[in-house]
Amino acid sequence: MVEDVRLIEVKKEILADNNQIARGVRERLRRTKTLLLNLMSSPGSGKTSLILRTVERLKSTIRIGVIEADIDSTVDAEKVAAGGIPAVQLRTGGFCHLDATMVTQGLDALNAEDLDLIIIENVGNLVCPAEFDTGAHKNVMILSVPEGDDKPLKYPLMFSICDVLLINKIDYLSLSDFDMAALRKRALVLNPNIKIIEISCKTAADIGEWIAWLKQEVDVFQMKQGGS
Amino acid sequence: MVEDVRLIEVKKEILADNNQIARGVRERLRRTKTLLLNLMSSPGSGKTSLILRTVERLKSTIRIGVIEADIDSTVDAEKVAAGGIPAVQLRTGGFCHLDATMVTQGLDALNAEDLDLIIIENVGNLVCPAEFDTGAHKNVMILSVPEGDDKPLKYPLMFSICDVLLINKIDYLSLSDFDMAALRKRALVLNPNIKIIEISCKTAADIGEWIAWLKQEVDVFQMKQGGS
Repeated sequence: MVEDVRLIEVKKEILADNNQIARGVRERLRRTKTLLLNLMSSPGSGKTSLILRTVERLKSTIRIGVIEADIDSTVDAEKVAAGGIPAVQLRTGGFCHLDATMVTQGLDALNAEDLDLIIIENVGNLVCPAEFDTGAHKNVMILSVPEGDDKPLKYPLMFSICDVLLINKIDYLSLSDFDMAALRKRALVLNPNIKIIEISCKTAADIGEWIAWLKQEVDVFQMKQGGS
Repeated sequence: MVEDVRLIEVKKEILADNNQIARGVRERLRRTKTLLLNLMSSPGSGKTSLILRTVERLKSTIRIGVIEADIDSTVDAEKVAAGGIPAVQLRTGGFCHLDATMVTQGLDALNAEDLDLIIIENVGNLVCPAEFDTGAHKNVMILSVPEGDDKPLKYPLMFSICDVLLINKIDYLSLSDFDMAALRKRALVLNPNIKIIEISCKTAADIGEWIAWLKQEVDVFQMKQGGS
């Protein structure tokens, strides 16, 4: 297990460096009153769809930008940019998560100081993105119904660090044995403060509660940083 | 980007060490005529369900064992062991993939030499498991319909290294805009030799083709290693 020990040590140092850079990101964005939100999920849970729905509903009242992460493609940034807001695509070149340095590059490319809200679409992965602080002020995860209600048992860290859990694809509930009560209980054991919202990005059902939460977070964040 | 460069260098060394251990695993299992199959997918795509269905169909004719990987739980190994075959659970302790060293520990715990087929259920993740050779003779991935048909564009390495692509949850097709022809085309561009099989682990629909492929692979593998 020599190689694992070596990896763990390097990882520990890298996480410490990353945490420091992440604190710098948060501080920088406080000064410009830009709320940074980090969106995480498995591949295909609906991150891009949620962003498109959110932009559609909020872009007339809030200045939004998007940082897309992808291993090796630019399809998501193209979709978001087609929605009429600034978007940058970071190719991670094989990395399975974003770190605060990569996010800094995204902020520079977006001219972050002119925006009220920046949404990061992290790499589709429930493991490493939970370990690397991106510098976001709020962390949000999506779990989609077809993935199953046992995910808090398997990826506890992700559920522990998120402020909001969006349960997406509730239009699949009729075909699924997903146990919503069990899921809620498992998530709340790990994180009693997590806010759980059921949505369907396909039909836009119940997206109102999510939009209201996000709008309020931006307002409160900007108020806390003092006069405009 | 200093920390990224450092991580890339360490990763390169680790991958080289891992490849050597993986070759040792394959050699060891050739001697005992034990086929090692590495099963990968996103979280919730149906790896455990597929293993349960496969064991159900094959355990009377083939001696099967299962190595389960999980960040932090033993739920999958318990389900598999309840199916009446030997199973070990490796907790990766935060690692987002299995490597050949961890697999070696699993093989030792299973008494691999007494088995015809060992199935590894890798960590639910489409990124890192594709980079780390486990020592398996065959790599299989599951993509479930709700994840979407764009996944080959986003996780090309995974599609490139697999011998078989199982498209699971085809019972969701009626509710989905999943484009099967587009998916097949995207996967075949990356990997012209990949065998694509559509299945539903929930209803056990079309699982016959998968079972036939696996049975034949075990037979051919054992034949190639010479007399019994």
